Order: sequence, then C-alpha cells, then structure tokens
Amino acid sequence: MPRILKRKFVETVQIDLGERSYPIVIAQDLLAQGQTWQALPKAAAALIVTNEVVAPLYLSAFKQALGNKYAQVHEVVLPDGEAHKDWQTLNLIFDGLLSHGCDRKTVLFALGGGVVGDMTGFAAASYMRGVPFVQVPTTLLSQVDSSVGGKTAINHPLGKNMIGAFYQPQLVVCDLATLDTLPARELSAGLAEVIKYGPIADMEFFSWLEHNMAALLQRDRTALIHAVKRSVEIKAWVVGQDEKEAGLRAILNFGHTFGHAMEAGMGYGNWLHGEGVAAGMVMAAELSRRLGMVDESFVLRLRKLIEQAGLPVRGAVIDAQDNAGRYLELMCIDKKSEAGEIRFVLIDGPGKAVVRSAPDALVREVIDSCCA
Amino acid sequence: MPRILKRKFVETVQIDLGERSYPIVIAQDLLAQGQTWQALPKAAAALIVTNEVVAPLYLSAFKQALGNKYAQVHEVVLPDGEAHKDWQTLNLIFDGLLSHGCDRKTVLFALGGGVVGDMTGFAAASYMRGVPFVQVPTTLLSQVDSSVGGKTAINHPLGKNMIGAFYQPQLVVCDLATLDTLPARELSAGLAEVIKYGPIADMEFFSWLEHNMAALLQRDRTALIHAVKRSVEIKAWVVGQDEKEAGLRAILNFGHTFGHAMEAGMGYGNWLHGEGVAAGMVMAAELSRRLGMVDESFVLRLRKLIEQAGLPVRGAVIDAQDNAGRYLELMCIDKKSEAGEIRFVLIDGPGKAVVRSAPDALVREVIDSCCA
Repeated sequence: MPRILKRKFVETVQIDLGERSYPIVIAQDLLAQGQTWQALPKAAAALIVTNEVVAPLYLSAFKQALGNKYAQVHEVVLPDGEAHKDWQTLNLIFDGLLSHGCDRKTVLFALGGGVVGDMTGFAAASYMRGVPFVQVPTTLLSQVDSSVGGKTAINHPLGKNMIGAFYQPQLVVCDLATLDTLPARELSAGLAEVIKYGPIADMEFFSWLEHNMAALLQRDRTALIHAVKRSVEIKAWVVGQDEKEAGLRAILNFGHTFGHAMEAGMGYGNWLHGEGVAAGMVMAAELSRRLGMVDESFVLRLRKLIEQAGLPVRGAVIDAQDNAGRYLELMCIDKKSEAGEIRFVLIDGPGKAVVRSAPDALVREVIDSCCA
Repeated sequence: MPRILKRKFVETVQIDLGERSYPIVIAQDLLAQGQTWQALPKAAAALIVTNEVVAPLYLSAFKQALGNKYAQVHEVVLPDGEAHKDWQTLNLIFDGLLSHGCDRKTVLFALGGGVVGDMTGFAAASYMRGVPFVQVPTTLLSQVDSSVGGKTAINHPLGKNMIGAFYQPQLVVCDLATLDTLPARELSAGLAEVIKYGPIADMEFFSWLEHNMAALLQRDRTALIHAVKRSVEIKAWVVGQDEKEAGLRAILNFGHTFGHAMEAGMGYGNWLHGEGVAAGMVMAAELSRRLGMVDESFVLRLRKLIEQAGLPVRGAVIDAQDNAGRYLELMCIDKKSEAGEIRFVLIDGPGKAVVRSAPDALVREVIDSCCA
C-alpha cells in the first residue's frame, strides 16, 4: 500500500502544556515504521520496557524500527499484570538502565498497556531524576486514557497508584493495529474509559457510542479511530487546563473511587481496572441520582451502554461481613479524599461532572443496592 | 532572652524559582518555636521523618512546636546512615503516610541530615504524585548543601542517588543550635561542602575560611552563621539559574565524581559523603593542574584547608588489583557522564569551575598519585 494512502488516516491530537507539550499520533501500522520515531531527541541509547505478553507480538519489529535512530536499543521485559505494578518490578527497569550504563539522555519507550506505561513513566521520571520517555500504548485502555496526560505511578499494598509522579512523555503513538491482538475482555475494559468521557463531558459522543458499540466490539477500524481520537481530545482538553489535578482533572476519575476500592479490596488483578471503573460508574451515577443530580433514565441509559460493552454493571462484594464499611475504608485513602472526607466524581446533569462529598449513609445505601 | 534580641540574628536567603521559590531561614533556636512554622500551608496533618540518632535530641520539642499548627503530627523514625538510603527504608515513609490515612495536603518535615532530607524529599515528590515538604537540616552538610535546591534521591546498588526527583521544599529552616550535638567527624564532613564553594565560585570566601577554620571547628556561632549563609547564597545563585542541572548546576558537584566512586566502591557508609568529596576535591584539583588550568600553589592551598578541616586529602583505595580501573568503571555511571564519557568538574583558575572530560590515561595518573 503506497505510503500516501496510509498517511491519510493519521490523526494527531496535541497536548498543550507549554514547554511540556507533545503530540498523540493515532493511526495503524505506526510502530514498525522508522519515520514514526524520527523527530525524537537524539541519544546514544533507547530502552524499551514491555511485558511478557506484548514482547512476542511486537518487540522484534519495534526494536528494528528504533535501530534506525539509536545506536543501542535495550529491552526490559516485565511480568504481566496489575499485581506486578510494584516496586520490585519497577526496580527491574532501574537494573536494566544501570547495568547497560544508560545515561540521562537515554529515551525510555513504554510498549504495552497501562501497567507498563505507568511503570515506565515513573521509572523515566525517577532515573537520574528524569530522562525522556515515549508512550506506545498497545491496549485500548492505555490509548484512550492512561498513556495521555503524564500520570505515572506504582501501587502500594495499602492503595493503588499511591507512589508516582506527574511526568509528561515526549510523544504518544497509538498504533490501532495492536488492538487486533487484544483479548475481548481487555477491549471491553478499555471501552469503560471511552464510555466515561460521555457523562463527564460530551453526551453527543455518548450517543455516538450507543449507535456504534457493536462496531467497536467488532474492532471496526473507522469506529475505533473515532473513539480513540474523541477520547484523547477530551482528555487533552482537561489535562491542558489542570495538569496536576488541582481541580478539574479529577473528573477523569468518574467511576474510579468505587472502582479503586474494588480493585484494592479484591487484590489487584482479579478485576481489570476498566471492569472496576465500569461498575464504579454505575454506582457513582446512582449516587448522583440519589442526590437529585440526574434522573433514573440517565442511570439506566449508562447502565445499558456499559452492559452492551460486555462490562459488569454491579459492584463486587469485597467483604462478606461489612461490604459497605470496607468500601468506605478503602475509599478514604483515595488520593482525592481530603481530611478523611471522600470526594466523589458525580454527574450534575448528563455531560457535566462535579467533585463533591456525600453523606456516608447515602453512600452505604448505594453500595448495598449496587453490589452483587 | 527577649525575642527581639534573638530575631536580630535571623538571616534569610531566597531561592528564586518562580512559583517554586522559597526562603531559607538561618538562625539559632528556630526549631522549637511555633512561629517558625506559622506561614506554612494549612493541612490536617504533618508527618515528621527523622532518624534514630536525631529523634531523641529534637523530635519531642519539634512535635510540640508543630502541634500549634497541625491537628495531627505523625512521625517516622528511620535507621541512621547512607547505607539505609534505599527503597526499603523509603517505603517506611510511605507505610507511615498510608497507615495514618494522610491525604495529599499532608506536609512532610525532614528533620535530620542529608540522608533524611533526600529520602523525605523523594517521598514527598512521589506520595500521591506530590505533597508539600519542609527541610529542617540538623547537620552542617545538609544546611549548606543538600537541603537547598530540591535534589532528592535514594541510592541503587549500582550507583548513588540514581533514583530521585527534582522537587523543591516549601521552606528550609537551618537551626544552628542543632549543630551543637553534631559529632566532630560530621562537622568536618559538612565543612567539605562549605570549602567547595570557594574554588568553584568565590575565592574571597575561601580566604575567609582559611582565616576562620579554627573558629568553625570550635563551633563559633558568628563564624558558623556566616559560613552557612554564604554557602547557601552561592547555592541559591547557581540553582536559580539551572534548577534541573542542564548545565551550570553541575559545578556544585566539584569533588563529587571521585567522591561518589569512593563511596560506592567502599560500600555506602564507610566514608562519610563529605569525606569522599574532600579527597575528591584534591583529586579534581590535581586533574585540573595536570590539564594546565590551575598551578600547584592552588592545589596545595586547597589541600591545606581540607586538612585543617580534619578531612582526608588522599583518596581511598577501593580495589587492591586495579584501583584506577575500578574508579573509572564507577565514574562511568555518574549522572554527569554522557555516552560513556566521564564529565569532571574542574577548576579553570581559582574561583571558576567548568565541566569537561579528560583523557583516561591522565585520570589514571591522578588516581594513582592521589590514593593512599
């Protein structure tokens, strides 16, 4: 296929953060093309961080493409999964960097999903107090959410993403071809973060998703490129106004307060992040309804779309004795909580999110009514 | 003593970094006074990080002073020493923060020397992607150098300060009274970083040190306040121009390239950081001389002042078989090295530093002639 034809389908969204601005490039078959990486800063070495699932699929072609630009291309292959998003695994990246004598110009590439991206980003933020890095997300979830905006972190046994940095990449490359190999469960998990953008910012996009969910599940390229692009545009708009989550940016955590509690309460890795967010969005919408901010038809509409995407609409039971109590306990250590008060992202009319607290009794009712 | 009299001796130096600017306050008896902390941001909780040596001396009075401002004042007491500047010890801070349910407004206070400051700063940079922190350095070394400028880090088995962040404190409080309890060996180690500022920036200060070294070793308050203030002024001037060590700031590492190799080569904690820097400055001066940048009289003058301060003037032997080879190997992974080339901070005429490489053969000669 002549290159000119391919290039027609390249979409670019710019993250506008002054001297930390960078582009997100969205198209198919970007990863193995040398020209994709040509504009990056020069360095003696590159180090690719990936995991044992992604490595057999894309590492070889990617290494070859980077070989045109960097004299040395090293690799670190991590174990797969949220359960490994910890210090021990992060340290494998530092071991790799130091054992290869990598200097502070070395460029790190995160080839994989959200876990690889978060860990590579935090390693880049911390190695020698900061080296450049590039996100090459290979899952829908990381393409539409976690690779964009510079949030990096690892988990602590007492809380998810508790240790990290705001650290922006030089470039994000979303190669849609990598979604072909994504398991159906992970495609659905990614759709949770796509759906999220509707209630918080764009109900027109929400309607589009209602009409195109079947196409997205069939991995229709035209549908996927629109879903990724529109998601990234909304995220770029939010992050450009509030890089370090002083206010507005918290709305991107719609569904996450409940979702994080599920992930932590069940042990990381039992539910996918997007699955927790999916059920968490239904719970947050139900809480919004009980506070009089949306009506029941909205909650049902959201619930239906989440169900269509193949995602859970009921929260997990994380404690057989006192489920609501355990949720509240875990949500108290959410990063948005302040002085012991849990801050929820709620929907104040479809298409608009607010961050506020809610009475414990009401939250308990929601948990009791929404958990299976 | 009436307060007005005390206040006369308060010196303040401002670090000018735009919205990240902050003051360094230098005086005696600051730590236990509530008013010292009054202007800090409000929060529900403060967490003091200190170590097992400093805690019995100052923790109780400090907690009481902070109690006027914060409803909860928590503490984490770390084991003492550079050997513990690692992830395991850093994690004790995260454990403390999370077990107390500390939110992202919690203020961290580093009460101790350079190791406590570096670890608390990195914990503050990373906890929930950044919480405010305050440096309360209780050693001469940390007052004149490590507490100022926002460099934070932990060590990796393969290199010193390899994992960290540039993260500025809200305030630095140098309470000179804390130097009364400092062991003589550590006072001398701090003087190494004081002496450093002469050759790289201010030979008038160097002359002052030559005339006042005896008074400093006797902990004369007037001499100490001048030494701390002038050191901090020079550091503030350098950091204000180059916060993230893109260029100029590297001159503050005069003596550190050789010094870090000694520390790493002998195992952290065998030599104090300041001792490695002391012998390292002699080696860097000797390298400068062999490159024709300074004459022998300067090297001898520097050597004499370092000796007067009770510090080593000969480098450590870190490998009985191939000492110079081991130095070179370790210096290659210094953060200033680029593409395998070691970058030395050298003296280009007394009072002026430059960062440059040098032929390996010449570096070997210097190591061979300068190590005991």
